[in-house]
Amino acid sequence: MQHLSSEMRGCIDECLRCYQTCLSMVSQHCLPAGGKHVQPEHVRLMLACAESCRTSAHVMLLGTPAHEHTCRACAEVCEACAKSCEAVGDMQECVDQCRRCAETCRTMAG
Amino acid sequence: MQHLSSEMRGCIDECLRCYQTCLSMVSQHCLPAGGKHVQPEHVRLMLACAESCRTSAHVMLLGTPAHEHTCRACAEVCEACAKSCEAVGDMQECVDQCRRCAETCRTMAG
Amino acid sequence: MQHLSSEMRGCIDECLRCYQTCLSMVSQHCLPAGGKHVQPEHVRLMLACAESCRTSAHVMLLGTPAHEHTCRACAEVCEACAKSCEAVGDMQECVDQCRRCAETCRTMAG
Amino acid sequence: MQHLSSEMRGCIDECLRCYQTCLSMVSQHCLPAGGKHVQPEHVRLMLACAESCRTSAHVMLLGTPAHEHTCRACAEVCEACAKSCEAVGDMQECVDQCRRCAETCRTMAG
Repeated sequence: MQHLSSEMRGCIDECLRCYQTCLSMVSQHCLPAGGKHVQPEHVRLMLACAESCRTSAHVMLLGTPAHEHTCRACAEVCEACAKSCEAVGDMQECVDQCRRCAETCRTMAG
Repeated sequence: MQHLSSEMRGCIDECLRCYQTCLSMVSQHCLPAGGKHVQPEHVRLMLACAESCRTSAHVMLLGTPAHEHTCRACAEVCEACAKSCEAVGDMQECVDQCRRCAETCRTMAG
Repeated sequence: MQHLSSEMRGCIDECLRCYQTCLSMVSQHCLPAGGKHVQPEHVRLMLACAESCRTSAHVMLLGTPAHEHTCRACAEVCEACAKSCEAVGDMQECVDQCRRCAETCRTMAG
Repeated sequence: MQHLSSEMRGCIDECLRCYQTCLSMVSQHCLPAGGKHVQPEHVRLMLACAESCRTSAHVMLLGTPAHEHTCRACAEVCEACAKSCEAVGDMQECVDQCRRCAETCRTMAG
């Protein structure tokens, strides 16, 4: 991965961290917790966020300028996911990770 | 999939068709053809397009309004991929599929 | 996709159908239904099945003999998902689709 | 990700490292290098390996016992990819990463 700028390398790392946080938290924190944590719209957004972080990282790893579009989408989905996690509560780790990922993706989207 | 509008159902179908067309053509048409077909920027864009179509379908299947963002990104990447396929030549099937997918994704992005 | 045998083409179709069925049903049927439908182990298995069907299709579309391994894994995960859907009940569409996908993947795994 | 055993956590890390190595190397090392590096079978295997590592990590992050099947498939695909990288040459980083990932996936497959 020596071909990537350190800025892009950092964004890939945030995306893959956010992917892992969203996917493992929805499955291993929200599902067992139940109640507000399994509201359909919240679970869907967590899964959509995991997916869009994964894709954002993927397109950057490919090294094509198309990452501009997938990073922009990722920033929006992360922001929406952060808000949903705040509304549900007891998900601060996920809120913080989504915000960090949104910020770095926004920068990469230019 | 009875819960999805027929418009969204149609967009998911186009995305999954475009995903399959891009991935199978880059692997089974471009790689054996060589020459302009394996220019790094072209291959990367084909792979990025396959990935972003797949994700656009995924977020629509989840049924969250976040599909607006991933559909918008998908339309842009498909458009860029169509142009790259036109420049390489002998890829009309892929050009047409990318254009159809871009159009329907643009509509779904609102 | 003219480069693929009709047998492989059929298996890709089943995998993508099963992917769509599992993902849309877990999100748009199980989550709103609640109760047994959102038991953590069931939801996880539905999501794992969607993912492994998607990957099985992906590796066949690439056209590498490595599909043997991903098809074998997919058959096992589909079988487990079908059983989970039967235990939960009211998921016959998913049971049937998982069984069809498992069978065709088993054949492709050789 | 506090819910995962440290052994599983380690396997997820290897899978995501191997995913990143295979995808970025095929796109940013093999494509520009040309020659033996873009032999269709080699490129396909690199892409199949990236995909199967990604899925193996995904199923472990979900936390379902189905990871046994996807880890087993991943170990086989990584092993095949390592061999292909050795045959092509000048890909030692990828050979080593695939071997490490294969080993840890084999352990997790049980």
